[in-house]
Amino acid sequence: MDNSIMVQALGELVGTFILVLLGDGVVAGVSLAKTKANGAGWIAITLGWGFAVTLGVYASAFMGPAHLNPAVTLAFAIIGKVSWSVVLPFIIAQMIGAFLGAVVVWIQYYPHWQATDDQSAILGTFATGPAIRSPFANLMSEIIGTFVLVFALLALTRGQFTEGLNPLVVGVIITAIGLSLGGTTGYAINPARDLGPRIAHAVLPIANKGDSDWQYSWIPVIGPFVGGILGALLFVLLP
Amino acid sequence: MDNSIMVQALGELVGTFILVLLGDGVVAGVSLAKTKANGAGWIAITLGWGFAVTLGVYASAFMGPAHLNPAVTLAFAIIGKVSWSVVLPFIIAQMIGAFLGAVVVWIQYYPHWQATDDQSAILGTFATGPAIRSPFANLMSEIIGTFVLVFALLALTRGQFTEGLNPLVVGVIITAIGLSLGGTTGYAINPARDLGPRIAHAVLPIANKGDSDWQYSWIPVIGPFVGGILGALLFVLLP
Amino acid sequence: MDNSIMVQALGELVGTFILVLLGDGVVAGVSLAKTKANGAGWIAITLGWGFAVTLGVYASAFMGPAHLNPAVTLAFAIIGKVSWSVVLPFIIAQMIGAFLGAVVVWIQYYPHWQATDDQSAILGTFATGPAIRSPFANLMSEIIGTFVLVFALLALTRGQFTEGLNPLVVGVIITAIGLSLGGTTGYAINPARDLGPRIAHAVLPIANKGDSDWQYSWIPVIGPFVGGILGALLFVLLP
Amino acid sequence: MDNSIMVQALGELVGTFILVLLGDGVVAGVSLAKTKANGAGWIAITLGWGFAVTLGVYASAFMGPAHLNPAVTLAFAIIGKVSWSVVLPFIIAQMIGAFLGAVVVWIQYYPHWQATDDQSAILGTFATGPAIRSPFANLMSEIIGTFVLVFALLALTRGQFTEGLNPLVVGVIITAIGLSLGGTTGYAINPARDLGPRIAHAVLPIANKGDSDWQYSWIPVIGPFVGGILGALLFVLLP
Repeated sequence: MDNSIMVQALGELVGTFILVLLGDGVVAGVSLAKTKANGAGWIAITLGWGFAVTLGVYASAFMGPAHLNPAVTLAFAIIGKVSWSVVLPFIIAQMIGAFLGAVVVWIQYYPHWQATDDQSAILGTFATGPAIRSPFANLMSEIIGTFVLVFALLALTRGQFTEGLNPLVVGVIITAIGLSLGGTTGYAINPARDLGPRIAHAVLPIANKGDSDWQYSWIPVIGPFVGGILGALLFVLLP
Repeated sequence: MDNSIMVQALGELVGTFILVLLGDGVVAGVSLAKTKANGAGWIAITLGWGFAVTLGVYASAFMGPAHLNPAVTLAFAIIGKVSWSVVLPFIIAQMIGAFLGAVVVWIQYYPHWQATDDQSAILGTFATGPAIRSPFANLMSEIIGTFVLVFALLALTRGQFTEGLNPLVVGVIITAIGLSLGGTTGYAINPARDLGPRIAHAVLPIANKGDSDWQYSWIPVIGPFVGGILGALLFVLLP
Repeated sequence: MDNSIMVQALGELVGTFILVLLGDGVVAGVSLAKTKANGAGWIAITLGWGFAVTLGVYASAFMGPAHLNPAVTLAFAIIGKVSWSVVLPFIIAQMIGAFLGAVVVWIQYYPHWQATDDQSAILGTFATGPAIRSPFANLMSEIIGTFVLVFALLALTRGQFTEGLNPLVVGVIITAIGLSLGGTTGYAINPARDLGPRIAHAVLPIANKGDSDWQYSWIPVIGPFVGGILGALLFVLLP
Repeated sequence: MDNSIMVQALGELVGTFILVLLGDGVVAGVSLAKTKANGAGWIAITLGWGFAVTLGVYASAFMGPAHLNPAVTLAFAIIGKVSWSVVLPFIIAQMIGAFLGAVVVWIQYYPHWQATDDQSAILGTFATGPAIRSPFANLMSEIIGTFVLVFALLALTRGQFTEGLNPLVVGVIITAIGLSLGGTTGYAINPARDLGPRIAHAVLPIANKGDSDWQYSWIPVIGPFVGGILGALLFVLLP
């Protein structure tokens, strides 16, 4: 990758924008009132997020490594796969992209916020929340999910997400984690994917919105960082 | 592509015919009464449309570039990916193909129109309509959806839809947009896909049909043209 | 393909056996009483049949061209893609394979026939039937479905089903046709797939079975032959 | 494969761990109370298990041949595809990996066991059970399912699961068997996948758990061994 850090960070921004636009978009379609996708269920959500990441990676591929996830960037820096100098620019770009993606979801589904009474459905379109609130168990869920994510990314693609059909393989990993491990906390497994849209939820004038559940917000940030580092370390330890 | 414009336009016609036959077909299966697919839901529709475009691209691939979409053709002309001389022949061919595809859907499901009371389900088999009628919001939805479509097509395939496994990747893009952004207006994201079948709905002697909702018909034409141009321009602007 | 006709025909037998075992198997799972797959719906059936054909093609690939369908074999003979000398051996092998596949489905779901009261669900596990009985319309449905099948097979794989990832592409075609065109007659689109298991239904001592609907049985035989020939001819006519 | 047997066995352990973590995980998501995936149905389970095996194979690929299944290892030894010296180390590693995967599923869904009243749903998250209890028929189901598995694995990948896109093809086989043949016994088709988690169910202090149905436990062990050997022998017998 010969692009400058600036261009690579722009790639992270664009890719994370697409990722959140499509990922939060599928949740909006399934859970907001009066959409044509209403009630399409967990299969729609897990496939939709898988495709969202696939397209996010592809959309970013000509500019940078397409991490699209601060937990991935940090874990890859720790094991020496990327330079520490990219960590801060990448994470800032990922946060901006995730925020902007959530803003466009708000525009895309504009008449449907007004039609939706359920405040937790509206928040759930932006950020994750626990099926059963239990901070330690929820944190463990996010750690395990991101552990599998980063270990699988390294095992399947050696960290080269953008080569050949790898973006499709990355989407398979995301859908698999969603189906198998996502039912507990909604599988943030990505601090930017959760925090960026949560900020958007807090600041946008969304009809019918309630509070942004800030007391939960640290779990989908800390959990993914911890799990990502553990997944990367396991991969490095294996022969 | 060394084929003459005539052969390429024939490819557009054949590909768009397959696209609409299979795409409108899946909507007919899911929403007409007494079919075996009745009630299969949004997953069936979004997967079915993805496969429809994949097969449309493949079916057209040996003749031309397989745009199958006037918004794609116009956007590619604006950024210089295709010659302006193909724009009018392609769009005419796409419109004819889409119309003929809708005619064959009418034949394929012949006894089911009589069995279906719901006039909006019958129209919805042919053309798109809004979940919540709101012209500005609906137009924005089509713009955003087609923006993602054309940007993703360029980012993923550099506009070469027919090479290698790219037809499958194009299908993934369509399914992803359907799942994530389609719940508002039914994601026409293609003027021919909407207008051609709408004309078929108007002129065919379909049992139980109602009016063709012409007051909405400009949105799935104008929105995709605008969104497609914006998506192409973003791709050109990025480094 | 240097294998003798005998080996190639054995390949047709084995491939069609796998195809019907898995294809009729998914219908049994979804529609027989007390199975874990009961009620999984049209998506399960269309994906299951797509995978069934993919695995049937793979399972036959080291022995022959993996037509697995008399309508494909006849159409390919007419356009000169295979020798006329293979037609009869292939069709006989396909019929035997389809019959044996249905026998094993009967064994696989043995306790579930007793548990199922619905005679049409039991027949539907073996052979297709119309959603609305209307011979001319049903025949048209099978013609159109097989027309798309053979045209798409030629356009996508040039008739080489077994090379590279083509078996997966063939599965995509089958699933697409099922989703988009299958809701009317259950998409036999293959005379052996319908007639072989119908004979099995007639001769096996299946608990709770009713009659084998022989008055319908000519439609999923004649329709696919006609449609297949038309699809092959269209492909040959195009430039 | 130049790795030592020790490294290869470690690969079996890691791959089977991922396989059971994701496979039992999707069952937990779909069937435990109050999860976000609750009720997602048979499609979610069959896709989830397919992805689980795909990711298990990938996660093991850099260390060994990724059998992840004692029935596959034994069948491959019998037909001479692997040395008899690997059989015991591989099976022990597969059992340990499967046990550990089930332990992590228990942690991942920790608050949901308490919330779930249905003891058979809890056991079903760990180990398979029959839809209709009938030992001979259940045994036949597991034999037929594993027969198809091993025959298809050999026909599709020649036993090289880890090359190129083969891990995805292996996942397709698993999902196909689940959809088409899994509705009777829940398709263990793998002694380690069933026995390892059943032991975990027996020894872990899982809230609300009932007994571990040991009287059924021999069927998903013996059936897969028999079916796997038959599938391998058929492949060897074919020309």
